[in-house]
Parts: sequence; structure tokens; C-alpha cells
Amino acid sequence: MENESYGIQVNGNSVHQVNGSLYQAKMRIRKPKWNIKASEMSRRTFNPIRAIVDSMNVEPNPSKNMIALSIGDPTIFGNLPTDDNVLQAMKEAIDSKKFNGYAPAIGYQKSRETVSNFYSCPEAPLDAKDVILTSGCSQAIELAIAVLCNPGQNILVPRPGFSLYKTLAVSMGIDVKLYNLLPEKSWEIDLKHLESLIDDKTGCIIVNNPSNPCGSVFSKSHLQKIIAVASRNCIPILADEIYAEMVFSGCKYTSVASLSTDVPILSCGGLAKRWLVPGWRMGWILIHDRKNVFGNEIREGLVRLSQRILGPCTIVQGALEAIINKTPQEFYDNTISFLKSNSDICYSALSTVAGLRPIKPSGAMYLMVGINMEHFPEFESDVDFTEKLIAEQSVFCLPATCFEYPNFFRIVVTVPEDMMLEACARIKEFCEQHYHLHTDSILQDIECDK
Amino acid sequence: MENESYGIQVNGNSVHQVNGSLYQAKMRIRKPKWNIKASEMSRRTFNPIRAIVDSMNVEPNPSKNMIALSIGDPTIFGNLPTDDNVLQAMKEAIDSKKFNGYAPAIGYQKSRETVSNFYSCPEAPLDAKDVILTSGCSQAIELAIAVLCNPGQNILVPRPGFSLYKTLAVSMGIDVKLYNLLPEKSWEIDLKHLESLIDDKTGCIIVNNPSNPCGSVFSKSHLQKIIAVASRNCIPILADEIYAEMVFSGCKYTSVASLSTDVPILSCGGLAKRWLVPGWRMGWILIHDRKNVFGNEIREGLVRLSQRILGPCTIVQGALEAIINKTPQEFYDNTISFLKSNSDICYSALSTVAGLRPIKPSGAMYLMVGINMEHFPEFESDVDFTEKLIAEQSVFCLPATCFEYPNFFRIVVTVPEDMMLEACARIKEFCEQHYHLHTDSILQDIECDK
Repeated sequence: MENESYGIQVNGNSVHQVNGSLYQAKMRIRKPKWNIKASEMSRRTFNPIRAIVDSMNVEPNPSKNMIALSIGDPTIFGNLPTDDNVLQAMKEAIDSKKFNGYAPAIGYQKSRETVSNFYSCPEAPLDAKDVILTSGCSQAIELAIAVLCNPGQNILVPRPGFSLYKTLAVSMGIDVKLYNLLPEKSWEIDLKHLESLIDDKTGCIIVNNPSNPCGSVFSKSHLQKIIAVASRNCIPILADEIYAEMVFSGCKYTSVASLSTDVPILSCGGLAKRWLVPGWRMGWILIHDRKNVFGNEIREGLVRLSQRILGPCTIVQGALEAIINKTPQEFYDNTISFLKSNSDICYSALSTVAGLRPIKPSGAMYLMVGINMEHFPEFESDVDFTEKLIAEQSVFCLPATCFEYPNFFRIVVTVPEDMMLEACARIKEFCEQHYHLHTDSILQDIECDK
Repeated sequence: MENESYGIQVNGNSVHQVNGSLYQAKMRIRKPKWNIKASEMSRRTFNPIRAIVDSMNVEPNPSKNMIALSIGDPTIFGNLPTDDNVLQAMKEAIDSKKFNGYAPAIGYQKSRETVSNFYSCPEAPLDAKDVILTSGCSQAIELAIAVLCNPGQNILVPRPGFSLYKTLAVSMGIDVKLYNLLPEKSWEIDLKHLESLIDDKTGCIIVNNPSNPCGSVFSKSHLQKIIAVASRNCIPILADEIYAEMVFSGCKYTSVASLSTDVPILSCGGLAKRWLVPGWRMGWILIHDRKNVFGNEIREGLVRLSQRILGPCTIVQGALEAIINKTPQEFYDNTISFLKSNSDICYSALSTVAGLRPIKPSGAMYLMVGINMEHFPEFESDVDFTEKLIAEQSVFCLPATCFEYPNFFRIVVTVPEDMMLEACARIKEFCEQHYHLHTDSILQDIECDK
């Protein structure tokens, strides 16, 4: 504190007795000063993507139109509109005039019932009481972490992984331990590494399936092994399943909860990705706890936490029944087939580029590309690589340092097909222009070491 | 922890060395056990209204229809619909298909501009950069407290006052100090008491004007005195102005910010009450800081905090411009004149009831009624009083213990007029049936003391 040496508190009147009464009297007439600092929590709330992107102070090539493959928002190019039934459902909710008042903090009973019916299955039955509606999947994840962990505990988070887990946890004083995903095994979890990180302060394991940024989808047997780790160590799972069912043909999505017998699971989801309306902020937590391990503790904790800011917009809640039940299967199928086609295009194109190593995705809307950095000696890092890619080719991909995974970059495959093709051609050109044979770079390294 | 005596951590493998290696070996094979507790924060998140209401285990009188004067939701009886322009604006936002993607975490620039233009005035000019859109006024208050205070600090909160301030602060480990409002001075703040509570840990003063639960509206000169206290002590003001402009004819609303020269102010508001759509969760923080006391610190802190769960529903954001600019003055006037008429009816009716002391409101949608408890010796408290009022008369008013103000109850004046009249008649009958002359109760007290 600025004035500490004077023994006076800045915003108040408290005076420490120092060197007798004269000094004290002098201090009493000292006026408080303005000295407002942002809270520690607000300082700890750190979004690495923002920080890295903001630090990329680079202009695109003015002779080429900008192609952003960076934003996980499927709506920006207009090629992936939501279904008309979804919009109609919203308008009907507005016209009904029934959804303007406060809903219960955890959501209307009927809307929660809709969600529980939609996700219930024989292996993992759900009831309306098992659903908490939230302001987007982000708040679902926030509440789930907040109810399971105290400051000083830790959560296990995938690397590469979505940055929000860390942002939220660190802001709450909860530590983050990163467990490795294995690109050579289609981004399966390194289970030994995962288990080695568990200690007596581990509050939960976050499992993100299908994955952002990897586009990977776990097999049933891999999910069973993950659950076995959680079960052996008695750690609950926070399943980020916002990309649930968004898997390509030939691949099957399995929810973590449908395979768990004893491990209690908070599954977070929402309308954002599958229904293509991320701005609407409609998310949910599904509470799976068939062995009653969470008991009332966690359920009541979630209810209490949701009373802080109440739930999602009531119009979306009111429309939820029609949104979920009236959207035709065709709509979901079309989205998936577009994403698969685009990711095939991208994967095929980049597979032929020397120095790059795309990892084939099976779902979600992302594709990770490894950069063999030794072949690009002029670039210091993936951040540097993607920065120059903007400057020269006006193509913007997120460096995977944003996901704690250097030497990769992430491509979002929701852009229109022609844009995808053009972007891949430009990435190819860029790599060809900067590619050096391995031996060259070794020689150069030797030069540098001199 | 359950197993502490064994020196083993429940969720992990750490073993304390006790009595040599045999014991230790034995412990190593001990399997972890499930032992999941809700976090301390979730336990500290306490909603006193819920707790008190839930404890009121009482059936209404089956021969009388229930009249709820308890819920601060103006939409429930259908007599106060929002304006058609508001609904139309929402449908146009949906049809435009422009508002389905992610907005910036603090809201669309254009929507923030709409809000800043609407609230800007020569004494307190606002720009889009001074507006943070939030998921309802509750989140606005949450972010404002979260950015201004650290755990261990305190905030000053009105008594009687809206319970959310305490719920949020306590959940974040921030202390709450209650300053008195004076019913005999139309609920003005006891300024001496307010100032006496300030210490070096005070993070902000919450000023709620117009007030829930009091329905009071501060005069310009009283607001100036409040600001003077804040200024002298260099404490920022968090102004809960969700009922801004909702004041009865003959009374004028003044925003705190329009009177402040040096004190920085975070003013929280939203669509909930004035536009009669509380469920839509559209709130905002207006940052007033003409002397740059907050600096970038607080602004950036708010931006960072808003990135945790992102902002309000984009459809409402997209509709905001039309909602705010196309709602005719007549709509606001009609709401106010209805609220005034109803509160006049209620005030007049209850003024004639022996044992009650209604305090005349000037705005918002509430009225506080003092209970001269000595005249109702059979009731232990306001909670008991309002409970019996349900049981006998099927009229539900919130006991002001919910607002840290025993011996009062709060009436919501948004119900249809006939319901208001009927409720007042029943309250009158109830009081007549239970009223005892003061001397009687004194005599009874003497009896009890024997």
C-alpha cells in the first residue's frame, strides 16, 4: 500500500500509534486518497487466446482477402444457418407472452424435462431434477467447477485443450494440471500420465469429447478406460460434451455417463454448436449420479450457485421444447456432412504439404495441424508461424500455444468450401516458400551455436 | 475428513508415516473412497429469501383463493405486459439471422452504444466503452462487486435491502456491513451510521435507488450527501439503479452519477423492471469515472470477468436498439401510473389498520409495512405474522426479515387492482382479529415474566 510507511490506511481512518501522540494527531488530518485496484480475482481471470491474439500485432496482406479459420463460431459466414424450426420456436415463445417473467434459477421445469428426455438413455437415465439450465455451456462449466472444487484443489485438464477450463479454475484459485493427449493415437488420453497427476487435492477430471481443438472422438473402450481411472481414484468427471453427437459418419459418439456405473458425472452441454446458435447462451448441466455419490450436496450446491445470477434467457427456455423436439434429423445430418466434407478437404490438402502434419479429425469442427518446426527455421514458434501466415497470405489460424500445445495450429472447418480450398492453397504456398530441408536447419542451428 | 485418524487422504494415495513401516504398508493397500463435498463457496451461497420462505411450512386457507404479494415479478398476473414494440423488436432480431453467433463478451458495440446514448446526460456523459452488457442486473451486480473487492474486504449495504448483495458478497468471502435506512424519513440513509461503518477494508458502498424493498426515491440533496460521504472517504459507489425512472408523478428520479464529480460509480441496470421482461436476463453496468479514478484497472477487470461466461443472449442484444428507442413514452407512463394508483390504494387501506404502519412509497413497485408487534402479542415475529396471514387469509407477503428488517413486511404492488383491494381487505380483517391494545400486551408480558 502506497502510504504504508506513514502507518495510515489509504481508504480509511485507522491510525497506528507510532512515535507518540503528536505523530498520531498529524496523521489524523491526513485525507484518504483514491486508490482503487481491480480485485485479485479479476486479475487472475486470464484468457490466453485473447492475450496471444492481441499480441499478434500484424496486418494481413492487403492484396489478399482475409480468411479467418480462427473462430469457433459456425455462424459467421452464413453458410451454416440454424434450422428454421429453431427460429420459429423462438418467435412462438415470444408471441405466447408466457416467458417474460422470472424462471426458477435452474430453469423452467418443462424446459429441464425436455433436456432430460432428449439425453436420457437406458444406461444413463435422466429426469428433470438432473438438469440445471445455465447461461451457455461456459456457465455450466463454471458452476460445475465451482461446486466440485475449493481454492487450493486442482483439476485435471487435457493438453491440448479448451482454454476456458484454466481461465475459470485459476480465477477461482483452483490449480490446473494438464494431462497429455496423444496425437499419434488420434488424441487419446495418455492414461498413465492422467493417473499420475491425481493427488489428494484433485477435485475433478475434465473430459472433453468430442474435442476442441482436436476434433477427436473417443471410442467406447477408451472412455471405459478413462472412467476406470476416475473410479479407481474416486474422482468425479466433468464431461464437456458441448459437441455431443457431432461426429462424422463411420464414427459413433458415446457419452461418458452412458458407460459409468459408479463414477458421478456432471455433463455440460448446450445449444451452441449442434443447433448453431452459440450467441443465445443456452447451456445445461446433466447430473449423472446413479450410485448417489454426489448425494444432495452437489445438487443443492448447484441450485444455490445458480441463484447468484439466475439462469438463461426465458425466451430461449420457452422455445427449448420445440427447438429440441422439432428440429429434423436432416438438419443435424447436413451439418455433420458439411463438416466432414470440409475437414476431408482440409486434411487431404494439408497432408501433401511438406513440413505440416494434420491430424485427421472425427468430429466437432476443428482440425489440428502439427508444424515440423525444424523445417521452418525462420519461425520461432507456432505463434510466429501463424503471424507470418496472416502477414503473407491473409489466413488466420489460431496457434495451438493458445491450447497449451506449441508447434501446432488449429483450423476451424466451418467456413464455406471455396474458402477452405483457397485457405489450404495459401497455406501450402506459404509452407513451400518457407520450407527448409531438415539438414539445412541443423546446419543453421550449428551456425547459431557458434 | 472421515479417515483423518488413519493418516490417509480419502481421494488420494498420500500416506503419513505413523508407527513404522508395517502400519504404512497396511495403509498403502487401503483403497480410496468416494467422499465428494460441495465446495465452500457453494455452501456460502445463501439466499435468505429462499431459506425463510421454504421454512414457512404453511397451507393457505382453502376457502380463500391465494393472493401472492410476495414476488417482485411484474409479469405474473398478466396485467402488466411489456410493450408490443419490445416483442416486435425481438422477432425482427430473430428474422434478421444476424444475432445467432457469439457477441463480444461485453456485448455488441452497437447495443452498448444504444445503452450509452439512452443514459448519457450532460452531467454524466457516457460512451459505448462505458457500458458492459451482462446476463441480467444480477450479473451486473456480481461483476461490479467482484471487480471492486477482494475476499476479506467489506461492502456497505442498505438495511432493509435487497438480499442478493449479501448473497453474492458472502459467497465471494467479502463481508457485509449493513447501514440503516430511516423509515421515518422516507427511508433516507442514516448518513452518520453509514460513515461510521467505513473502514480501510471497505470496497464500495451499495446505493439502491429507487429501492427494493422500500419503494423509496432519494432526493437530489440526499444523494449529494451520500456522494459527499463516499468522496470524503474515497470509496466508490455501486449504484443499483434497476428501478431508474420508475418514480411516481410529483417525484423526480436522479441518477447517482449525474451528481458526482469525483466519486467513481458503477451503475447497474437492465431491462427487467422498466421494460417488464425480467426473465430475459439483459442487464448492464454503466461505468462513470470522469476523474479517471478507476483508470483502466477496473474497466479491464470488468472485461476480463465478463469473458468467464460471456454476455447476455444475442437475440435480446440485437433487439436492444429497437427496444430502447422504439418503446413509446406512453408505455413507461402507463406502468408508473398503474403502480402509483395501486400503491395509493394499498397505502390508504393499510393506513387505517390499527397496528400497521405502511410507509408511503414514491417509486419502484414495493411498499413496506411496519407491524407494531406489541399489538399482536400472539405472533413472535414478522415471519410468524406473515405465516398466519397465509394460513388464515391466503395472502402472502414477504416478511421483511428477508431484508434484514424484522417487524415489517413487504407488499408488491404490481398485482391487478381488484386483487390489491381484496388483499388489503383481508389484511385488515386479519389485523382486526389479532389486534390487542398495547396495555393488554404489557399485562400479558407481565404474566409471562412470572
